[in-house]
Amino acid sequence: MFKFELQAQSGQARAGVLYTPHGAIPTPVFAPVGTQATVKAMQPRELYELGATLILANTYHLYLRPSDGLIARLGGLHRFMAWERPILTDSGGFQVFSLDALRRIDDDGVTFRSHLDGSIHRFTPEKSIQIQHNLGADIIMCFDDCPKPHNRDEVRAACDRTHAWAVRCLEEHTRSGDPARQALFGIVQGGIFPDLRAESVRFLTDLDFVGYAIGGLAVGESKAEMLATLDCTVPLLPADRPRYLMGVGSPEDLVNGVARGVDIFDCVLPTRMARHGAALTRHGRLNMRNLEHAEDSAPIEASCTCYTCAHFSRAYLRHLVKSNELLGHQLLTLHNLHLLLTLMREMRAAILAGTFEIYAANFLATYRTTNKEAPAPTSL
Amino acid sequence: MFKFELQAQSGQARAGVLYTPHGAIPTPVFAPVGTQATVKAMQPRELYELGATLILANTYHLYLRPSDGLIARLGGLHRFMAWERPILTDSGGFQVFSLDALRRIDDDGVTFRSHLDGSIHRFTPEKSIQIQHNLGADIIMCFDDCPKPHNRDEVRAACDRTHAWAVRCLEEHTRSGDPARQALFGIVQGGIFPDLRAESVRFLTDLDFVGYAIGGLAVGESKAEMLATLDCTVPLLPADRPRYLMGVGSPEDLVNGVARGVDIFDCVLPTRMARHGAALTRHGRLNMRNLEHAEDSAPIEASCTCYTCAHFSRAYLRHLVKSNELLGHQLLTLHNLHLLLTLMREMRAAILAGTFEIYAANFLATYRTTNKEAPAPTSL
Repeated sequence: MFKFELQAQSGQARAGVLYTPHGAIPTPVFAPVGTQATVKAMQPRELYELGATLILANTYHLYLRPSDGLIARLGGLHRFMAWERPILTDSGGFQVFSLDALRRIDDDGVTFRSHLDGSIHRFTPEKSIQIQHNLGADIIMCFDDCPKPHNRDEVRAACDRTHAWAVRCLEEHTRSGDPARQALFGIVQGGIFPDLRAESVRFLTDLDFVGYAIGGLAVGESKAEMLATLDCTVPLLPADRPRYLMGVGSPEDLVNGVARGVDIFDCVLPTRMARHGAALTRHGRLNMRNLEHAEDSAPIEASCTCYTCAHFSRAYLRHLVKSNELLGHQLLTLHNLHLLLTLMREMRAAILAGTFEIYAANFLATYRTTNKEAPAPTSL
Repeated sequence: MFKFELQAQSGQARAGVLYTPHGAIPTPVFAPVGTQATVKAMQPRELYELGATLILANTYHLYLRPSDGLIARLGGLHRFMAWERPILTDSGGFQVFSLDALRRIDDDGVTFRSHLDGSIHRFTPEKSIQIQHNLGADIIMCFDDCPKPHNRDEVRAACDRTHAWAVRCLEEHTRSGDPARQALFGIVQGGIFPDLRAESVRFLTDLDFVGYAIGGLAVGESKAEMLATLDCTVPLLPADRPRYLMGVGSPEDLVNGVARGVDIFDCVLPTRMARHGAALTRHGRLNMRNLEHAEDSAPIEASCTCYTCAHFSRAYLRHLVKSNELLGHQLLTLHNLHLLLTLMREMRAAILAGTFEIYAANFLATYRTTNKEAPAPTSL
């Protein structure tokens, strides 16, 4: 069964535990993304070692390949990918809406072409929930309409659709699902408009979901707009339910999100950056291809305790990246995830100690934001 | 210091220990290939876990990128790649001779173009040894001329050149190297011609190398020719020196090589096959892309104790391979190396128990050779 236990608050920041059928998730928590039923370049045992307690998988991708039916016949997603801890699946909505020219939306659902073979498919709220039942994640999401955040008319229409679909998702989950096995979260929309966000919160909280996601952010708005939207939305959410900011995961965004009362995050940033040859650090981002690292015998971060930093120099990592060696992806992924998961644990400890505001201020004071640091959308 | 200790013999098969500055290597041994200072997709800790005691790195590749000078300045290859156990480097000869149109050979050395940027370089026996000194492997190889095995005139000319170069390599190693830190092996050539092989053995053993490699095999000759050449060459080599069959590593070739008295092997086969989506098993090779695996909940091999087989189904591995996920490369590489390293340990135990001939006969009786099973050349 699901239970969310709030343990401490420091300012708006919260520490808690979300209990699920596959174990307890201490919050605040960052979920590495395992789009195709694998967190890219990481073995489950490595993720356990890093202390990952929750991962995300993508409904759109797994529906297309290898198919949710196959995964169900093989015992569900946990068993399929040999991951014994909690999993969260998205609804497929964001992915399908990201297909641009390849999709057509109506009030009943979305028709789209597969990016793999061009075949035509249709998602409805009911279908998304049924697929997520087949996958068997602990936390599943409502199928929502995720618009660009700045056009008020579009955002309002998307809110109306999202709300109608939330009702249908809840009905489908109640009808054919097992709420003791899978918890359904609602998704708040409303773009950058405080009144629409408030209206969306009111509508969804009336439906009484196990948790609430803040959707429609990290999709092209400015940092200031994202934080302002959190400021006006999060306080309206019920304190006794977990809050999930979708698609956010740069170090500074995690700190700013926790400071505003968010409990759950996911993002492809640490894994994707690694494959692009970038290392995340407490002082900003390093491009490991840069010549300055060529003969540098120091690790990525001297203070880091990850396997990569304990054994390998920047010079070696640069060599691997320049040589397109798979080990480069692996070692950088491991380091980047280690940093974010450590950051989450440090924030949780600070909240429990009542020192979060000092911790956050110190972290942000030494963290160097680059232009590239804008939140990375979860793309295909 | 180096010492080779022969512990037992079972038929022609030998069990021994080769002591090196970075530890003891129980033989017979298979060395995974780490061309660019990384065994592709494998962390050193994973190779330790698999029981790898020796790896090979390629002089040609590391000379070009990141350069042997850089590796020397960073403390040598062991430190650069964080590998604490013994390393063997080839001479670069085979790689340079494989460049086809890009190289010109004369009696003094080889001029070639880099496959990376087209720049022109020159290897001589002295240069090869100097590069290998910079890399700092425990076992280093003479620079040799490696011809196609069937043309007697070409093979004879290559033998003459190989012998002259062996003298120069030994002189350079004596002059500028540290024989207590690095052991130089000679390489026997002679193609498929028994008299040329015998002549090559005589010439090289007169020079008194620490160990002897059998070169010029696994380069296009038939299986029968390879085994016949081993049959006529290995017995001529001194019993108190380790014997190394270069570039060989399919399961049946390892068994047949050990049966003929070979102590050391290396091959890209297990790592390369993994990246092509193939799993090695005790009963032959599996193409993990095949539809037959789509819903198969069984592991690659039910009897296998590797991490991959303990946790993941064929269906999941097929999904990873079909989806081009890095984890597919990693898990198949891990399994394939586990099989070959386990096979070597089993053969060693059988030799020590005096039961090698039964073991080998049983293994070969159940191992299904496919057409693809011809030895894979160590290419670029």
